[in-house]
Amino acid sequence: MIMRPRGVLEASLYVDDLAAAESFYREVLGLELHSRQEGRHVFFRCGTTMVLLFEPHATDDDDESVPPHGCDGPGHLCFAVAKDELQAWRDQLGRHGVAIEQEVEWPHGGHSIYFRDPAGNSLELATPELWQ
Amino acid sequence: MIMRPRGVLEASLYVDDLAAAESFYREVLGLELHSRQEGRHVFFRCGTTMVLLFEPHATDDDDESVPPHGCDGPGHLCFAVAKDELQAWRDQLGRHGVAIEQEVEWPHGGHSIYFRDPAGNSLELATPELWQ
Repeated sequence: MIMRPRGVLEASLYVDDLAAAESFYREVLGLELHSRQEGRHVFFRCGTTMVLLFEPHATDDDDESVPPHGCDGPGHLCFAVAKDELQAWRDQLGRHGVAIEQEVEWPHGGHSIYFRDPAGNSLELATPELWQ
Repeated sequence: MIMRPRGVLEASLYVDDLAAAESFYREVLGLELHSRQEGRHVFFRCGTTMVLLFEPHATDDDDESVPPHGCDGPGHLCFAVAKDELQAWRDQLGRHGVAIEQEVEWPHGGHSIYFRDPAGNSLELATPELWQ
């Protein structure tokens, strides 16, 4: 029998400015702050998954007792939203002056709104129909 | 009222060898293959989240109609497993010759097993108690 994970428990992105990231993910994305460690990370809860934002030079040369990691360049993360929430999300992004980079209406169903976090990561709000 | 996402719909990692990644995530991690695009990506389903593995030079200079992204360096992703499955996971990793880099028994509960994918990304299997 092959073992299969139950789900994704942690997804990570890397950011150069933890304070800017914390404000953005709390206020623009409405995520629930879990914890922070000055100069190293800020962690958020999102449904059943933790969203971990790391300063990559801190985690690549770490005094924490976990294996090193750390990326340069823009990563990608997508959050699930309901179809009838899309306009409220556009409004929320707009209130914070966040530019929508692109919207896609997918041929097989689902809709995506793309924008950037302050570190340049590509973020997406999408309806789960996209993957069904 | 502030809008909040329902969960993480897509988590991404970057890999240099898509064929090696596809074998690893299917056979060692037991993920369900969703789709692949030669030279660009391989996508897996994991619970309610999609795990997207991208070749970063392809997605950073993309002919797809989505915003560019792409990271260099080892990223991090963690999968949820049950406590009573940990030994079966160690056995499954061992059968595929995957070295366990570290195990952590967390002071507030939860257990983590760390290892690397073929691209060097830091992967973790952890019990959700870790975050409760």
